[in-house]
Order: sequence, then structure tokens, then C-alpha cells
Amino acid sequence: MKFRVKNLAIGTGNTMIALINYIDADKYDLHFSDRVRIRKGKREIIASIDITDSHEIVLPGQIGLFEEVYREIRTRDDDIVTIHIDEKPLSLHYIRKKLDGHKLKYDEMKAIVDDLIKNKLTDVELAYFVASTYMHEMTVDETVALTRAIVKTGETLRIKSKIVVDKHCIGGVAGNRTTMMLVPIVAAAGLVIPKTSSRAITSAAGTSDTVEVLCDVCLSKDRMESIVNTAGGCLVWGGAVNLAPADDKIIRVERPLSLDPLGQLLASILAKKKSVSATHLIIDIPIGRGSKTESKKKAYLLKRRFENISKKIGINTRVVLTDGTQPVGNGIGPALEARDVLWTLQNSVRGANDLKEKSIMLAGEIFDMVKKTRKGEGKKLAREIVESGKAYLKFIEIIKAQDAKIIYPEQIDIGEFSHAIESPRMGRIAHVDNKAVNRICRIAGAPHDHGAGIYLEVHKGDLVKKRNKLFTIYSNSKERLKYAVEAVKYLEPIEIKAV
Amino acid sequence: MKFRVKNLAIGTGNTMIALINYIDADKYDLHFSDRVRIRKGKREIIASIDITDSHEIVLPGQIGLFEEVYREIRTRDDDIVTIHIDEKPLSLHYIRKKLDGHKLKYDEMKAIVDDLIKNKLTDVELAYFVASTYMHEMTVDETVALTRAIVKTGETLRIKSKIVVDKHCIGGVAGNRTTMMLVPIVAAAGLVIPKTSSRAITSAAGTSDTVEVLCDVCLSKDRMESIVNTAGGCLVWGGAVNLAPADDKIIRVERPLSLDPLGQLLASILAKKKSVSATHLIIDIPIGRGSKTESKKKAYLLKRRFENISKKIGINTRVVLTDGTQPVGNGIGPALEARDVLWTLQNSVRGANDLKEKSIMLAGEIFDMVKKTRKGEGKKLAREIVESGKAYLKFIEIIKAQDAKIIYPEQIDIGEFSHAIESPRMGRIAHVDNKAVNRICRIAGAPHDHGAGIYLEVHKGDLVKKRNKLFTIYSNSKERLKYAVEAVKYLEPIEIKAV
Repeated sequence: MKFRVKNLAIGTGNTMIALINYIDADKYDLHFSDRVRIRKGKREIIASIDITDSHEIVLPGQIGLFEEVYREIRTRDDDIVTIHIDEKPLSLHYIRKKLDGHKLKYDEMKAIVDDLIKNKLTDVELAYFVASTYMHEMTVDETVALTRAIVKTGETLRIKSKIVVDKHCIGGVAGNRTTMMLVPIVAAAGLVIPKTSSRAITSAAGTSDTVEVLCDVCLSKDRMESIVNTAGGCLVWGGAVNLAPADDKIIRVERPLSLDPLGQLLASILAKKKSVSATHLIIDIPIGRGSKTESKKKAYLLKRRFENISKKIGINTRVVLTDGTQPVGNGIGPALEARDVLWTLQNSVRGANDLKEKSIMLAGEIFDMVKKTRKGEGKKLAREIVESGKAYLKFIEIIKAQDAKIIYPEQIDIGEFSHAIESPRMGRIAHVDNKAVNRICRIAGAPHDHGAGIYLEVHKGDLVKKRNKLFTIYSNSKERLKYAVEAVKYLEPIEIKAV
Repeated sequence: MKFRVKNLAIGTGNTMIALINYIDADKYDLHFSDRVRIRKGKREIIASIDITDSHEIVLPGQIGLFEEVYREIRTRDDDIVTIHIDEKPLSLHYIRKKLDGHKLKYDEMKAIVDDLIKNKLTDVELAYFVASTYMHEMTVDETVALTRAIVKTGETLRIKSKIVVDKHCIGGVAGNRTTMMLVPIVAAAGLVIPKTSSRAITSAAGTSDTVEVLCDVCLSKDRMESIVNTAGGCLVWGGAVNLAPADDKIIRVERPLSLDPLGQLLASILAKKKSVSATHLIIDIPIGRGSKTESKKKAYLLKRRFENISKKIGINTRVVLTDGTQPVGNGIGPALEARDVLWTLQNSVRGANDLKEKSIMLAGEIFDMVKKTRKGEGKKLAREIVESGKAYLKFIEIIKAQDAKIIYPEQIDIGEFSHAIESPRMGRIAHVDNKAVNRICRIAGAPHDHGAGIYLEVHKGDLVKKRNKLFTIYSNSKERLKYAVEAVKYLEPIEIKAV
């Protein structure tokens, strides 16, 4: 078949796609997502077919090439190209196999991830892959295979150390900035912790949003390596480095239906850890009312799976279940959290004690794990590092290496407008709801408005009198502040029980 | 949020899509497939977000609107539009519900089909729907609900008759053109049969490909109605009329992985029958080696499901299991089949006896069903209609109404080049393989080369001597004929057993 080229000045951002008219599709028996080899001279490329009903884009006899395709085979409008029908990629057979309830081996999983990375799979085909692992949950071996395939198809950090520590939190707890505490504590002990983090998806701030208040988080892989090899740690946004890129593509098609198959979640997290060459990993699973993992049973399943799969891919992992029933720290929202972290590292009276204690506990576990200390003495070392100010100095060293804009808590701008919420009556604080707190912060503008958020004046168990301040909402937008204050009424973030 | 419009002079052919830069996506926390309301003046439209990494298509601050979108809200380049994040459509919750293994009610199924028809679902979302019904097979009630929803969202044929007959064959048998026989037999008996058919997908010819050798098959709904109300029957390509359009959209996303969930298959077939107002339906399921339904068990399951669901949607259905172990008729391929049908209707000695007998049997069942004849006498009436020439005259009336190009078998052009395949030895014909025969015909150029195909000289059970002609391959391309002849060696369409 010969076609006349029309270069479509737009990219798909993804799959290689060639667009033909429905009349030609009918004539040549070509269908949506069929693969064709397009040849011009000696150049050849494989693309997926898409079909249009309109005569305004491509006429019969024409083939519309998207940016990715015409750049590759260097066509101009009205060039003649030859088209041959190609076999569908083998990875499609494997996706079908998984849909049919069969298990996939490493080579099969690898073929899928390879094609995914090379933009050989369409979104629809990828959605079938996600659906298959959602409905036929991946076994441990399959998850290991997927993790390995994701690592293999991305870059890996080169770290000059035999022991490389990493940390992960399942999330869901507002204000929980232990990563920003843990990285300097661990690095100050002479260990290496090349930390990448994410931005907020549904919370008031992700670690990267908060770190960004103080310094740059978008570093290249080379710069990340150099900082880690010098300072022992870093606080980088994972989205900026090309580690485990397959993962981002999978997450993209999970989002429309908010799917998050367990195996994909495990592979996604562990592939990222493997890509930074982690040898030791601590995972924090906050549990209880208002957290992401409300059921203990689910938390234990997760714990077992993490430990099992980590072992098989060569990471020594310890999973800690922590209290996820209320926020950690006082500030929630990027700027408020950044200020909390700095105060806490400075051992200021304005520091957040719960944040400090949780970080010391987690760092202690790490020191035990890597045998930095005698068994059971990790926490002691961690406390010494924080209280001596060594953690603070290490933190300043790291953020300076990442082009710090701000190093003093007093320099941080908090939202210009604020509104204090008072207790309507006397009683004891029975519950501070993470989901409601996050929601109110987001309505106030967090995380994009760094200064927006909530500053908690009370915690679970505290006694309050009528008109005591419960929390203050901050925002840089008067309108958003108004909406956030209104939201307090129907979201009821704090429960007070009569005493 | 305000964006500057860039009209992208290309349509998606499907979903309403707005393209933004990844920097804005990050800034406003927008993700692939999020829904947004785009407003310009008083006009507003809901679109799905897609995100581009490239700065060459849309810059930060710009929004790229595809043809479908900018036509609707009438924007020009550089217009300013306001964007609000919208809730995702309810149908997505229902798709997720089905993915999670729950059953869907009619209202939920209807919401999915409604959004599908209105282009509110992306391909990825639709793929999740197909995957959900593939992995959690639809119940009878769900299939009924889907069928009703598909019918409701399409047009329905207006037929001036209380009894409307229809026919369906599961396919897979080469040359099986009973529809072209049945329509004139049934119409000649004074019944109404508004038949739509499909084109070939994997076979040498679909009914519509063969009818097209003789007359026009692309009729509008209005013209189809008028022909049926006058002649009693028609032979139309289903793709040209807007009956059950949801079905085509579903089939489109099934294709990449060749998925065909049973419930979707049943709903797809029965919705089309309901759309032509069918009251009585005969379904032919060919069974046995080389057919689509090789197992009897599967055939009986299909039979029960068809009868069950038909009853619930108000169609009186009879399912007949027929011999699918060899082709029906002598010619395979559009022109060769069209010639067979004409010869058979003319009661010519060159007619195909198996085609005639099968058609008479099926017509007899219909006459019994609608009580046209006394019980058991339907076949007698059918034979009388064929052998008296009434069926032939009715056929000519119908194809003339459809702008016949050819009415005599001698006018039909068979492929210019041919090659006869001879028996390598003496023996009895043990098997004629439908799949192999179809494959060879397609290699020779069928169905797009109408003249390409196979003319069988022998059938199962026949005795042959060495060098007896087994069949002839025809093609209008010397090269394709060569490939088809070579394919005979490895596809082995005919098995001969020593006697």
C-alpha cells in the first residue's frame, strides 16, 4: 500500500500513531491499533493505526503522521510512503495471557515493560495490562518480575557506598515530614541516603512540595549522584530524574479509574528504591482511623508482601506500623511544614515533638538494621544526632547543595490571610481527621500556594475550653480562605468529646 | 484558571479532549483524563484533559482544543477561556464497580452506554469497561441491561408489520451464504425480514461483501425502511445504518487484544436484532472441527444464553446447531459465492445443493416459528418457494431495489488468474478445513479483490483418484495467486484418507 504523507504538527506525547481515513481502513482491512511498518527510502518505523471519519484531516490515500513519527522517518507533506501490515507486538499476547488469568514470567513482563518504554503500546493496551493485574492480583514472583523489568528499563544511581539506605511512607498522614528529618539524621551518622520523593496527589503537601519551599528539588541524575556522594543525602523530586520511568507511564493510565493494584503499588515503590541502589529500606505504614490503611489486616498483608519481594530483589527491608490516626507535626501545607521541620531540627521550643520522636524512632530502626549501633541502641544514637544539632547542620549542608533559597524558619512566608477556628465547647479532642485536614488545606490553596495550610494548636487527647483556639487556616487568597473556613463546617476535622 | 486557546486543526474522532502543557498540569494538579468545564462567554463544554511534554504544541498558559471541542464552543486562536475542574462522570464509578466484581443494574449500564455514545468516555476508560466484562462475565440480567441500553441509544427501524423475522449466524463456515437465500425465501412467503449483515473480519467474505458484487449495500435507514416495507426484505450492510452505534464503539477497543466477552457478543448481536424491530429470530450455530464453536458444550451454553436473553428483551428466538465441519456451497470469495447463490436460486444444475438444503431447513424453522405453516410443514413451503422460482424472483426484486449492477450469474467477473490444485493420490475426502480455506482465499486477495477465492470441486466424503481436481484458486493478482498456491502446502486445507 502506498500513501501520501500529511505531517500533523502535533505529538501524541506517547505512542507512535499513524492516522488514515476510514475508507482506506475499510479497503485495506486495517483496524484501530493494528501495527504497520511505514517506509520512506531506507528509513522505516512501526506505528499504530488510528482511523478518522472526517475528510478534513486525512483524505483517502493520505496518511497523517504525528510529530513523533514524522521526525523519525523525516517525511514532508506529500512524500509517498509504503505501508506494510506488521505483526502485533508479542507483549500484547502476554497482556492477553494475564487477562485470561495465567501467570507471567520475567521475560514476558520484561517484554511488556520494554514495549511500554519504547512507546510501542497504546493507552488502551496499557489499560488492559493494568486491568489484568487489578483483577488477577500479581503473585510475589510476578511482582518481583515487574519490579526487575521496571528497574532494568530505567537508569540506576551510581553510589560509592556498600550500604545505601532508603525510606518510604505509604502516606495519608497530614504534615508527616519525617523524610526531611530522617535524611539529615541518617546522613549525619555517616550513612548514605539518596532520597527521592513525590509531590502531593491528594494531600496538602508531598515531601517535594515542602522541600521546595527551601531549595531546588528538580535535580538531574548526575547532580543528585554528586550531592549524595559528597553530603551523604539529598531531598530530590523523583519526577525530575529518569529512574523507573515505566512506572510513571503505568500510573498515568491507572488514574482515570483511580486503580492501584497491589502488585503495581509494590513494584512501583520497590523499583524506585532499587533504582537508587538501596540496600536497606525502612517502610512506614501509618494505620488506624483516617489513615490510608485503616485495617490492621491489610497493613500486615502489605508488610509481608514488602518484606517478601524486597528479599527477592536484594533489599533488606523493615516495615514499621505507626499511628496514623492524626496529623504529625503542627503545620500542614508546604510553608508551615517547612517551618516545623527547621524549628524541630534546631531543637527550638516551637519544634514539633511528635515529628521529632517519630523521626528518631525510624532512624533508630535504620541504625539497628545496618548494624551501625548495638541492637536496641539505634534510637539513642538518633536522639544524640538530633539534640546535638548535628542533624540540623547536615540538613543545612544538603539544602545548600541544592541551592537553598531559605535556611531560617523566620524567612518563610506563611499565607497573608488567616482565620482562627475556636472550640465551640469544653471537652477533650477525640479525633483529628487527616482526610478532612488535607482537604481544607487544599481548598485554602495548598500545595500550589505554598503559604496555604493549617496550623494545629491542639492534638488528640488535649483538653480544651470553650473558645480555645483549635487551629488557624492560612491562605494567600481571601476567597480561598473563605471557602476553607466554610468547609470546616461540613468536613468537621476535629471531634471534641464532653468530659 | 484562565487559558489562551490554540485550536488544533485535527479531531480525535472520539472523545472531547483538551491538551495542556505538563507545567500547567503540575501547577493546577490536573491529570490525564480529568474532566474540565471549558467556558467561553455563555458557551460551555466538558472535555477530558490530556497532557503534553512538548513546548511545540501548547505552551504553559495555553490550552489546545481539538476540532470537536473548538467547533462546539466556537473559539479562535488566542481567545481566553475559563477552566473549572469537573467531577468525573458517574459512569466511571460504575465501570470501577464492575471491575471490582459487582453487578451492574440497568441504570448503571445505561449511564455507561449514554456517556459512550456522547463521547464522554476516553478509550482507556472504555477499555476498562471491556476488561471488566471480560474478566467478570456479565450475568443474564446484565447482558439484558446492556442490550436494552445499546438499543435505547441508537435508532430503531419502523416496520409496518406485527411479525418481523431476523436471522443470525455465528459464522466461521466458509461460503455459508444462507442469508442471501433465506431473505428472498422468507419475503416471498409474505413475511418481513429487514436484514443487516457485516463484512468479513477474518473470513474470505462476509454477507455484505458478497451482496456488494451484485448491488449497493450502503443504504440509509430511511431507504432500508422503504425497501423493506415494499419488497418485504433487504440485504444491507449494518455499518452504513445508525442502528446500535454503541456496539461499534465497544468493538473498536476490543480489537487490540481480540477480546470478545460472551456478554458483549450476545448484547451486540441481540441489540442489532432489536433495533430492526425483530420479533422472531433464528440463530445458526455451526459446530464441529474447523468451525468457530468446536465444542458442543460451548454451543449449548450459547444456545441457552441466546434463548434466555432474547425472551427477556421480547424476541422469540430459536437456535439451530448445524454442521460446521466444512464449507457450504462450492464458491468461496465474494464473486464466486454470488454466482453460487444466483445459480442455486435459479435451480440451475450448477447450483450448490448443500446451500439450498440448509437454507430450506432454516426457512422451514422460521415458518414453523411464526406459525405460517402447520407444525412440521415449514420446510415443505420453503422448498416449494425455492423450486417454483418465487425465491429467485423475490431476490431479483430486492437487489433491483438496491440498484443492482448485475443480475445474471454469467455477468460476474471471476479472478483473471487461476490455478487448479489436484489430488496427490487416490482416497476419500476426510476433511475440508474452513479456517485454511478462508486463509488461502484472503491470501489470494479476498474480500477486497471480489474475484479472488476458491472454487471447490470436492466435498467431505467424496472419493477422488490421483490427479483429480480438488479445487481452483482465483485471483486478479498473479503475485497473490502464487502466494496462495504456496500456502496450500503448509495450510493443507483438504485431508485425503486412503481407502
